[in-house]
Amino acid sequence: MTDFRRSQRVYASACVCYACYMARQLPSGKKLHDAHEPETDTSRERSTARIMPVQTDSITSRDNKWLKKFRAALRGTGPGQGEPIALEGPKLVEEGVRAGLETEALLVSETGERQLERILRAASDSESGIARSRIFRTTDKLFESVAGTETPQGIAALFRAREWNFDDVLRGRADSGGAYRSDAPLVIVMAAVQDPGNVGTIVRSAEAFGASGVIATRGTADPWSPKALRASAGSALRLPLLRGMAAPVLLAQLRIAGVKILAAGTKLDDGSIPKSVNVDTFMADMRGACAIFIGNEGGGLPSEVEHAADNWISIAMNEDVESLNAGVAASVILFEAARQRRGA
Amino acid sequence: MTDFRRSQRVYASACVCYACYMARQLPSGKKLHDAHEPETDTSRERSTARIMPVQTDSITSRDNKWLKKFRAALRGTGPGQGEPIALEGPKLVEEGVRAGLETEALLVSETGERQLERILRAASDSESGIARSRIFRTTDKLFESVAGTETPQGIAALFRAREWNFDDVLRGRADSGGAYRSDAPLVIVMAAVQDPGNVGTIVRSAEAFGASGVIATRGTADPWSPKALRASAGSALRLPLLRGMAAPVLLAQLRIAGVKILAAGTKLDDGSIPKSVNVDTFMADMRGACAIFIGNEGGGLPSEVEHAADNWISIAMNEDVESLNAGVAASVILFEAARQRRGA
Repeated sequence: MTDFRRSQRVYASACVCYACYMARQLPSGKKLHDAHEPETDTSRERSTARIMPVQTDSITSRDNKWLKKFRAALRGTGPGQGEPIALEGPKLVEEGVRAGLETEALLVSETGERQLERILRAASDSESGIARSRIFRTTDKLFESVAGTETPQGIAALFRAREWNFDDVLRGRADSGGAYRSDAPLVIVMAAVQDPGNVGTIVRSAEAFGASGVIATRGTADPWSPKALRASAGSALRLPLLRGMAAPVLLAQLRIAGVKILAAGTKLDDGSIPKSVNVDTFMADMRGACAIFIGNEGGGLPSEVEHAADNWISIAMNEDVESLNAGVAASVILFEAARQRRGA
Repeated sequence: MTDFRRSQRVYASACVCYACYMARQLPSGKKLHDAHEPETDTSRERSTARIMPVQTDSITSRDNKWLKKFRAALRGTGPGQGEPIALEGPKLVEEGVRAGLETEALLVSETGERQLERILRAASDSESGIARSRIFRTTDKLFESVAGTETPQGIAALFRAREWNFDDVLRGRADSGGAYRSDAPLVIVMAAVQDPGNVGTIVRSAEAFGASGVIATRGTADPWSPKALRASAGSALRLPLLRGMAAPVLLAQLRIAGVKILAAGTKLDDGSIPKSVNVDTFMADMRGACAIFIGNEGGGLPSEVEHAADNWISIAMNEDVESLNAGVAASVILFEAARQRRGA
């Protein structure tokens, strides 16, 4: 029954199933969704079998306003205020749908057609819905002209960005039952991390190792940019996340909230974490509420963070190695935090 | 004195310093290196001040055989048997020189000229030397036509690849005093890891966390390819490394050597380390001699490795996350191995 009630959301505004589509073509006045009465639809197999690709008109002009929107978003460096998040590829689009994001538009090429059913099934399983009027079809050639990847897979989506606030980042995301985590806040702050791949990797590891949220300060590559989203494997769609914060404001807010500030980056040529920092502790205590600052790949942490830090985190390593990859360094610290919190 | 004796190697075949260059232009029969008598050269400042860029003829033809060699190597996927390792950019070229690799050729553009002194100083500090006849100059435009990066920095080198064997990988590299590590072998095996960035990151973390060596099985991106070398930040030039081994042969050799086989990858869509594997141990014991197998990003580990494994390594993580980035997963396991070995 739950499955069914969820799937109703998909059909809410204009059902995408083939039966309803056919019903709309007939002048019979037949009530929509007759085909979906609970008694016939509690079986999952039957329900999903009916979510069949619908036929909509194909976009054939490069100048179509939706193609333009997709092109700008898929090739951009991240959405501005109020702009949608763009995702490409069946796997990521499915992650977006499963994360419960509202779909503004779904673009499908001839090649992507066979993935559509899977996406619609995911929408039916999750809280999100995809209105039929928001599914656009186009040719493979035109899809290529808007895609941001070299070998596009023919499916892309624009999702309404979720708005998180500072409390969300400390509290973490509620689970499917609406309950919040019991752990102390564990926040990763990216202070001008430049490479979108590193940013995405850090967000992915942050979710994996139980961070409550992630903050990208001004100058950090946008975690919602297409490249970072790919590297995050969808974690940036689920984890509470703030973008473009000014470091001084953030430091003040963390102080007020009683969150410890841990610095993990210094000025090195190419990596963010050096083999030795001011203090030689193996690892700082990360069991209490804390925010871990990861610095810029080239320039390390801004001086206001260095001055505000309650403690430094150093990663013990071979002396021949100058530094670790920024994504690896953050991940190793997060892994260590998770170990400490588990009491292992 | 040591500094001076080392710097003599640079001048061995044909001195690159300005004084010697001028001396060669004169019909005076003046003995080369007169200018480098120890009593005048023990001061480091004076010694390095004399290693000045030499003027050689500039290559102006696209079809020059050296430009062709550089182009093939810098844009390739890794050197074949007997071919040189190609490095681009002042930082990496310096790492190659400092690692003691023999320089087959050094290519410098107008833009790269100002980096040359630093490279020659590194050659003078290390055991390696750069013969004057192996320094080639060219224009920025021609340099761009051979470079493998989008914003070339005007300096590239071809180095003779070092030949490592299986024992080297178990024993580790000798330190500058010729002594070997006392730790049990800790080997990272990349089993068909496809992304050169992941391969480089894994090699970099392997060196950082004290692995004795790295093995890339057949089907793994070449750790000596330009992309992997960049991601390894030079670690692939120092750490004992075997390429293109067949998995069954490797497994047999590890068995004979008494090295435990640890599997860390299963068949997942995009990442190599899943949240749960057959055994739910938090972490396997990695204090003894062991080889950790990291699987292919898409397909996981080959079945012969899965069958041969003495144990599986699982990384405890949030259940919403399907997997970690392959480079991160390997790094976290290496970090844990280092912690166990340190007894922390």
